Amino acid sequence: MKGWIDVTAPLQPRLPSYPGNRPFSLCWVERLESGGPCNLSALDIGSHAGTHVDAPLHFIEEGAPIERVPLADLCGPCRVVDIDDARRVDLPELRRTLRGRVPERLLLRTRNSRRKLMRRKSFAKDFVYLTPEAASWLVEGGARLVGIDYLSIERFGFKSPDTHRALLGAGVPIIEGLELSEVRPGSYELFCMPLLVTGADGAPARAALRSPA
Amino acid sequence: MKGWIDVTAPLQPRLPSYPGNRPFSLCWVERLESGGPCNLSALDIGSHAGTHVDAPLHFIEEGAPIERVPLADLCGPCRVVDIDDARRVDLPELRRTLRGRVPERLLLRTRNSRRKLMRRKSFAKDFVYLTPEAASWLVEGGARLVGIDYLSIERFGFKSPDTHRALLGAGVPIIEGLELSEVRPGSYELFCMPLLVTGADGAPARAALRSPA
Repeated sequence: MKGWIDVTAPLQPRLPSYPGNRPFSLCWVERLESGGPCNLSALDIGSHAGTHVDAPLHFIEEGAPIERVPLADLCGPCRVVDIDDARRVDLPELRRTLRGRVPERLLLRTRNSRRKLMRRKSFAKDFVYLTPEAASWLVEGGARLVGIDYLSIERFGFKSPDTHRALLGAGVPIIEGLELSEVRPGSYELFCMPLLVTGADGAPARAALRSPA
Repeated sequence: MKGWIDVTAPLQPRLPSYPGNRPFSLCWVERLESGGPCNLSALDIGSHAGTHVDAPLHFIEEGAPIERVPLADLCGPCRVVDIDDARRVDLPELRRTLRGRVPERLLLRTRNSRRKLMRRKSFAKDFVYLTPEAASWLVEGGARLVGIDYLSIERFGFKSPDTHRALLGAGVPIIEGLELSEVRPGSYELFCMPLLVTGADGAPARAALRSPA
């Protein structure tokens, strides 16, 4: 049996939250220890909390909502690459890392993972992001999915969301908030399954890798 | 490329909700059409809304929470069976349907699917369920996962949650709220990925089938 590598950030109180997003919380409706019939909880959660998928609708007026992002794009062969110590993933950095070849699905493991940013409650503004030029190059090369290891793929404090627009405008969904600290670069099979929320701009997801057969 | 069959009930306002559970709602934090920087939503959702996984902790005091239910149990070869017109899935019915052989992962497509209960807002108390004896037989036969096509696997109005206890007490997770209306009985590869909510008794999930290679 091939093993699973979970690349989902656990939803728990220390989870960082992007400014303006609803922070995650779990509340208990029933508890066995208090004499309830069962343990029963409920979640209050932003669509972009933790590990999540951005659908085109997030930044594109007539873009596809999350239920129209095909599982065939979100799941399949995938490459995880290590971006050494760059403060941003720009076109020269990405070309060099990928040796000029764009994979169908690409997960960027950056300095964000080495800093374990997804495990720190306080939001880090200086996270590593993908530049718009690098995003456009991935689209031109035929990428179907791009993922990154912090809560946004776009430079914090952007004037115009050009990285999102380059990807989402071409119908390429984005996985943000991946937990890649323990993952080695290489080829995998990715399964990324966001909640099926009708009409939403994105949704929290479970994402995991399997080693190729 | 093998095709995907989504077996997730879409999270939308007409989704039925089990009595006592938090009903699902989507709210908008930002809208492009109102001049916002993006479309941005948030979810208020019970852990057992729509298609979801029950972890042992749901009914077992020291049971595993959802983050400890292995993906290796939730994903893998799976059998979907049709339970004709029975009002409940009892041991004789199940033995006959399975010809005595318990599969690792079993999804029960019942009269609930023919009635399209997951698409009707009003909660149906007379849904088809699995009896405790049939559940125990599945556990003894080595089942790792059992799924059903409405919001509970237990008879409505139960005195004691014996079906849940038989499965969860043996560490067998349950998928409830599956959308199986359009699925043919047969052998598939199942991918069931609940949100990774630390400490929770269950979680909403995305679930999908692939035809075997």
